[in-house]
Amino acid sequence: MAKVGFIGLGNMGGPMVRNLIKAGHSLKVYDLSEDAINFAVQAGAMATKSVKEASSEVDFVVTMVPVGSNVREIFLEDGILAAAAPGTVMIDSSTIDVGSAQAVHEAAKSAGFNMIDAPVSGGVIGADAGTLTFMCGGDKDSFEKAKPILQGMGKNIVHCGSGGLGQATKICNNMLAGINALAAAEAMTMGERLGVSPDILYEVISTSTGRSYIFETSNPMPDVCSTSPANNKFKPGFMAKLMLKDLRLSQAAAQDAKTSTPLGAAATAAFQQLIDSGFGDLDTSSIIKVIKPESK
Amino acid sequence: MAKVGFIGLGNMGGPMVRNLIKAGHSLKVYDLSEDAINFAVQAGAMATKSVKEASSEVDFVVTMVPVGSNVREIFLEDGILAAAAPGTVMIDSSTIDVGSAQAVHEAAKSAGFNMIDAPVSGGVIGADAGTLTFMCGGDKDSFEKAKPILQGMGKNIVHCGSGGLGQATKICNNMLAGINALAAAEAMTMGERLGVSPDILYEVISTSTGRSYIFETSNPMPDVCSTSPANNKFKPGFMAKLMLKDLRLSQAAAQDAKTSTPLGAAATAAFQQLIDSGFGDLDTSSIIKVIKPESK
Amino acid sequence: MAKVGFIGLGNMGGPMVRNLIKAGHSLKVYDLSEDAINFAVQAGAMATKSVKEASSEVDFVVTMVPVGSNVREIFLEDGILAAAAPGTVMIDSSTIDVGSAQAVHEAAKSAGFNMIDAPVSGGVIGADAGTLTFMCGGDKDSFEKAKPILQGMGKNIVHCGSGGLGQATKICNNMLAGINALAAAEAMTMGERLGVSPDILYEVISTSTGRSYIFETSNPMPDVCSTSPANNKFKPGFMAKLMLKDLRLSQAAAQDAKTSTPLGAAATAAFQQLIDSGFGDLDTSSIIKVIKPESK
Amino acid sequence: MAKVGFIGLGNMGGPMVRNLIKAGHSLKVYDLSEDAINFAVQAGAMATKSVKEASSEVDFVVTMVPVGSNVREIFLEDGILAAAAPGTVMIDSSTIDVGSAQAVHEAAKSAGFNMIDAPVSGGVIGADAGTLTFMCGGDKDSFEKAKPILQGMGKNIVHCGSGGLGQATKICNNMLAGINALAAAEAMTMGERLGVSPDILYEVISTSTGRSYIFETSNPMPDVCSTSPANNKFKPGFMAKLMLKDLRLSQAAAQDAKTSTPLGAAATAAFQQLIDSGFGDLDTSSIIKVIKPESK
Repeated sequence: MAKVGFIGLGNMGGPMVRNLIKAGHSLKVYDLSEDAINFAVQAGAMATKSVKEASSEVDFVVTMVPVGSNVREIFLEDGILAAAAPGTVMIDSSTIDVGSAQAVHEAAKSAGFNMIDAPVSGGVIGADAGTLTFMCGGDKDSFEKAKPILQGMGKNIVHCGSGGLGQATKICNNMLAGINALAAAEAMTMGERLGVSPDILYEVISTSTGRSYIFETSNPMPDVCSTSPANNKFKPGFMAKLMLKDLRLSQAAAQDAKTSTPLGAAATAAFQQLIDSGFGDLDTSSIIKVIKPESK
Repeated sequence: MAKVGFIGLGNMGGPMVRNLIKAGHSLKVYDLSEDAINFAVQAGAMATKSVKEASSEVDFVVTMVPVGSNVREIFLEDGILAAAAPGTVMIDSSTIDVGSAQAVHEAAKSAGFNMIDAPVSGGVIGADAGTLTFMCGGDKDSFEKAKPILQGMGKNIVHCGSGGLGQATKICNNMLAGINALAAAEAMTMGERLGVSPDILYEVISTSTGRSYIFETSNPMPDVCSTSPANNKFKPGFMAKLMLKDLRLSQAAAQDAKTSTPLGAAATAAFQQLIDSGFGDLDTSSIIKVIKPESK
Repeated sequence: MAKVGFIGLGNMGGPMVRNLIKAGHSLKVYDLSEDAINFAVQAGAMATKSVKEASSEVDFVVTMVPVGSNVREIFLEDGILAAAAPGTVMIDSSTIDVGSAQAVHEAAKSAGFNMIDAPVSGGVIGADAGTLTFMCGGDKDSFEKAKPILQGMGKNIVHCGSGGLGQATKICNNMLAGINALAAAEAMTMGERLGVSPDILYEVISTSTGRSYIFETSNPMPDVCSTSPANNKFKPGFMAKLMLKDLRLSQAAAQDAKTSTPLGAAATAAFQQLIDSGFGDLDTSSIIKVIKPESK
Repeated sequence: MAKVGFIGLGNMGGPMVRNLIKAGHSLKVYDLSEDAINFAVQAGAMATKSVKEASSEVDFVVTMVPVGSNVREIFLEDGILAAAAPGTVMIDSSTIDVGSAQAVHEAAKSAGFNMIDAPVSGGVIGADAGTLTFMCGGDKDSFEKAKPILQGMGKNIVHCGSGGLGQATKICNNMLAGINALAAAEAMTMGERLGVSPDILYEVISTSTGRSYIFETSNPMPDVCSTSPANNKFKPGFMAKLMLKDLRLSQAAAQDAKTSTPLGAAATAAFQQLIDSGFGDLDTSSIIKVIKPESK
């Protein structure tokens, strides 16, 4: 079993740490919140007082923080690369921009470390159940070294390509999920306003060519499918402001890749409108409020 | 077994007639093309020389023609309503605008007939195999009367609501299918340009939250899934110009329903661009040419 | 001086009638509202009790009604074409879809009448001041015959082409105006959120390459230009719901013309969202509420 | 008269240097291209061999380079801030992202220098004629110190706010220009396909509410206005790839400002499609090729 330093103990990082402990690993943890550290300690982790302390004298460092500038900071300035012992394997599971991911990869490589970016899908439920999907970017050797640790937190561990391409893959997927949420809101509202019952729309489309995972499981129209947060006043689930973050990342990636995304761009604008209207903390399915403002 | 008048013997109508004959019904057919009539006669139908002749002295009239003005014409001017015997049940399986569907419904009702709109999904393959889905609009009584005939041509017969709501439901579904095709083209191209292999993108997204029926089965990126027309130089399948027709119908429906469809509108613009570039006869998956012009 | 039948005495039709009377013409008027008729009578018009009465025994018939189906109805069913004397010149100043305009043109021509479509720009203020612009469609002969009457109501009388092309021209112009209103809202809000004072944004852009008539005179950001309804809590001016009507006409025209309008489509969706939120009676400049919901 | 170090001698920088010399200033210049340096020397400038040499022992440093990373590099790494004497005033006239502009501002301020960002509008013609508009960001003191130098190169010198807000203002303006170019292409093509002559469309809209500076002076439809590059096979003018650069900057700014730009986003997608099709070196007016591919 391995020694693992884990930095970032939020809604996702917390349960990931618990699963690593269950899998038999030894954990050193750090977070800006003392409460988050204490919670991890109760699960069997060892507290540390800094990023550097958490990342020294371990076999693996796993990071799970909000945005690209955080990742740059903790790797390049706060010192993971400075503090880590030779041979430490770095795993960044944050969802960040491809550019930051590649910059940190390069720095890690220059310093002689194996590193992968490994953003996840599956949400808090997947983190808790240990069933996350990891989309990994990095060289084959780094991927193979990181894999046993990832298997302690997830089910589906995919190698997507070189450094940064885990992020690229995730962003492509999440752009589609955001588009599909808005598209479902458009079609359900249009159908309802034309006079079709939402139940029938759901039933027919769920078995026809227009269906998507989001349409079937998180339909923005309340009360048409049992699993949708729309049924519960849009209580998340996956918050709309996080979906906007991912859509914004997709648009930054489109810029880097010099590629056009007319639907990705329109979905980004719609989610920005939703957040501007004060609904960022609701579930992604609340995007229906942009199309049908009377939705509750 | 019933006497059925069938008007419109094209790619869809032809095989639908053959299946009705196989189911034991007696068919009188009409089309503007003599060849199409002859082909139906070889399958056992009786030729007629006009819409009126085909729709007189039958139990059911089924119509399968290109656009709304055709339906208005054959019902209101060319005389189905004038020629049909009392008690004849009318089934329009054309995909047309909701407004025309409702106008013809009203006229049929005023003339004392049972009528349903019953557009299909499933394409030429479904028509041939007798596995079409029928999305039906009309009163319950008309639906029940029409059902036995529809069962001779399809598997899934759904009552979507009052007159015109079969069309409404189909248009909502097909708008989503068009959006999903463009969205898939955007995500696959972006991922590829970021450096991810199309195979990996397909594999990951097909099992993640961004997936859709179109992404999985008709992916616009060639050679990532076995069933896509993209693999075969975009040979249809479902022609892009027909998808544009359905998207245009969706935008007309959005206007009638006073509802906003930002993605539906953007997809319509993109398909118009594709058709403007001369690719209307290719499969819908060729929408990738708008995003990645070098696609072949 | 001429005898003129005028049908439709609303916000636009009322002042147009008064200007025709001032110009020395003799007016017979009709409207569904008795109040509107009485108001015209006070200005010197003769009341009538039907469309047919207003359009019989006159040299010209002018119509100014809300939508295409109204125009079809009063010309084809209610009887302008039936009631008018040979040689009567028909002028439809309503803003309607190109298809309806062309259908009525054709019927008028078949019945032996000269007809033009002559939608206006200039709004209520222009109607009152007699400074409207008329965009005219019809043959040269009809245009020349109608011109003297139009000169009693407007300044700029343009022949745009054959029947329906007055409507086509107006719709192209108004689509641009709608796009420019939304574009101005986007740029002003973005600049303000980046930290630039709205006054400076207005000053710089009004003298630079990004400027437009709408940006300069009806800027959606309150208090940057003296003429904008945005300064007065978005009191119209030109109501947002009428702009949506014109944008919807543009999208129907795009369908007829088989042409793509990605910006026209996105603007239509945004105005539909504005109207869905209950702001249809505000000025067009209130479109800023879609981008900056806290606008007042 | 002042000593000025000038870095970046391209299509814009070259004529700006010549105008500064004409205004009586003493110039030290640097560029990666020796030819560009030689050309400036012939106009009276003194050659240098590095960024550092050009920016030492001068009163002002002016930079005019392609992208944000260039600006970061020459200020922060290549050493303008390291080489410049105390009291040197820094002027960056490049068009770059707001983030880079603000980062360099901050570094300059920390090092004790006055600095402004001063992107220009007016193009190569304005640079040559000395009639550029400068949109300036920085504190009032820096702006006043820089003004006399800017007056040697332009006519209209505007103070837009604190550091970076010159860039912000320019990006808002150019986003509108890009939108207006695409909007003009949509309206002109739609009108033409409806049957209106392009000349009449241009004449009517140029005097109506839909008009914009771009519509009037750089109309994408060939041969409707004398000044448009569209008349000359889209020879630039302002290259489409530079417009895409500015639109991409606008979308990055929208992300920073947390604001929605549905039209800005759609225009960005359309210009990316144009560039993807190989037309990046044509004038911006060639955007009509996305709407009307047969345009030449």
